Amino acid sequence: MKKIINHPDHFVDEMIDALLLAHPGWLKPVTADRRALVRADAPNAGKVGIVTGGGSGHLPAFLGYVGKGLASGVAVGNVFSSPSSEQIYEATKAVHGGAGVLYLYGNYGGDVFNFDLAADLADADGIETRTVHVADDMASAPPERASDRRGVAGMVFGFKCAGAAAERGDTLDEVARIAAKANGATRTMGVGLSPTILPAARKPTFTLPDGEMEIGIGIHGEPGTHRGKLESADAIAERLAGAILGDLRAEAGSSVALLVNGLGATPLEELYLLYRRAEQAVAAAGLRVARAYVGEYVTSLEMAGASISVMQLDEELDTLLDAPVRSPFWREGWRVDEGGAR
Amino acid sequence: MKKIINHPDHFVDEMIDALLLAHPGWLKPVTADRRALVRADAPNAGKVGIVTGGGSGHLPAFLGYVGKGLASGVAVGNVFSSPSSEQIYEATKAVHGGAGVLYLYGNYGGDVFNFDLAADLADADGIETRTVHVADDMASAPPERASDRRGVAGMVFGFKCAGAAAERGDTLDEVARIAAKANGATRTMGVGLSPTILPAARKPTFTLPDGEMEIGIGIHGEPGTHRGKLESADAIAERLAGAILGDLRAEAGSSVALLVNGLGATPLEELYLLYRRAEQAVAAAGLRVARAYVGEYVTSLEMAGASISVMQLDEELDTLLDAPVRSPFWREGWRVDEGGAR
Repeated sequence: MKKIINHPDHFVDEMIDALLLAHPGWLKPVTADRRALVRADAPNAGKVGIVTGGGSGHLPAFLGYVGKGLASGVAVGNVFSSPSSEQIYEATKAVHGGAGVLYLYGNYGGDVFNFDLAADLADADGIETRTVHVADDMASAPPERASDRRGVAGMVFGFKCAGAAAERGDTLDEVARIAAKANGATRTMGVGLSPTILPAARKPTFTLPDGEMEIGIGIHGEPGTHRGKLESADAIAERLAGAILGDLRAEAGSSVALLVNGLGATPLEELYLLYRRAEQAVAAAGLRVARAYVGEYVTSLEMAGASISVMQLDEELDTLLDAPVRSPFWREGWRVDEGGAR
Repeated sequence: MKKIINHPDHFVDEMIDALLLAHPGWLKPVTADRRALVRADAPNAGKVGIVTGGGSGHLPAFLGYVGKGLASGVAVGNVFSSPSSEQIYEATKAVHGGAGVLYLYGNYGGDVFNFDLAADLADADGIETRTVHVADDMASAPPERASDRRGVAGMVFGFKCAGAAAERGDTLDEVARIAAKANGATRTMGVGLSPTILPAARKPTFTLPDGEMEIGIGIHGEPGTHRGKLESADAIAERLAGAILGDLRAEAGSSVALLVNGLGATPLEELYLLYRRAEQAVAAAGLRVARAYVGEYVTSLEMAGASISVMQLDEELDTLLDAPVRSPFWREGWRVDEGGAR
């Protein structure tokens, strides 16, 4: 229940203030409340803009995935709450460089509602938009309802690939196609060991008895597929990777990107233990890890736990993953297949 | 008490296994037990080697600070335990490119003992060594005994500056001088909110009642200067930055690097809140933040808390901070003074 904060009502605004102070030249606010921010050099004439957004409490997501080669604007909600349609709309106008705007964000009810409203406002201004929902959390819906899935850590691959496509000048249709392709090629599954504590509530979002874990947990503490006794790192990695690989059905011989994401309080050492067994599971399935990402990419404040994501690669996605980005939050993956050459 | 591990006895070795698996082409082990590792391209002929090391449980430290432009070798102890003199000695031989070896590590009794023994072994082989202790934790000893201080998060500046000096071909005396200069220009102070849980013990290293914090805590949970009621982010930042700036006595007008380091379980958002007020305190003291580092640089497994470090810059150190590095763990600072240009 211990948090290093000031007044909970100021948590998000002070965080934005701090980001702008620590990283000048990166983003600029485009609304008086500074809840809509865009790349410092936006709009980029002739290029597709990408607007993302969602609740706060997930750093590096969503703010950290704005910048050259990533999304071009973001609308920032309160902790675990959608931003407003107005904030999304203002970000949209500020990134529109004449080539339209892609909305790329996690598939959550409030966000979908507000992004759709913003799309209508943009449409009335003659700004063409497309929408791709990140929906990589396989624990949140079965394969036959894959489009209902929530967006979790695998979203970073969407931002990276779509952002690179926009940066090189692809059309709106193309950028949307690539975002959808990255999303369709990605599966994530997580495990939670402890709850999140919301700054305003100052109490845990849920309880999890000592010695138990929640398999399939969401990044807001949404219930997973089941609760059980805490298992070893190897057993957890096998469970998560096994489910992912079973759902992804990647052709043997394929290359994949493997991401082990910390939800907030889990030590980096433990994430590497998960990576180790997940890599072995990938190899046992006849696939090859081409890129390794280990660290905190999409968090849930101080939740203990982790998720594993796998993205099936092809030459197109692989090229886009290589493109340069500029954000203080971006953690580059390691080129496993080339012995780290980059 | 929940950890994602396998058998505690295998924790460190599996972590090393995972690092080598995830990041091929970065490090190579030089002992059968793989507890001594060096840059994949070591030894670098004609260049000074830098060997570091210490207990595990601090990732990215110490392993993560090995690579081009950083340290060249590392000896890896068990959790919170010194590596052996033999491991340090093997790393020394493997990085020696004919120009001698600098030992740069945190000022802890076991480490000092074993590095000194290794120096004797190296000396018998005709390998010249120098030693610089990182001793930036101002809560661990008063100014008149500054050399007794422990080494904590500020060590990253030493690795970065000395590593850049070695990379450009400076002599052993020069690399040692720069390491000592970086250390002398750096102060750190931390706050702990929750204990660490050692994998083998599976119980907290200390207890801290709900609603309390430990000011001046060390990265192994060493007691700080005092315990008190948990304060706001602003009050904590003012307290830590105030103590640091009072001890550092930097001349008005100086540039500094400002590092807010997470100890493990504290959300990135909260680190940014600390950064915000610390930056304001630096500015109020007539100093200018030239570089901002926010994130997990030196951790203590899942301890909740953070530390603030300030390094006073001059042109020499500033140039060295700009040099390129190669490690999957390095998080580059943001050039605040140039609007992020880099």
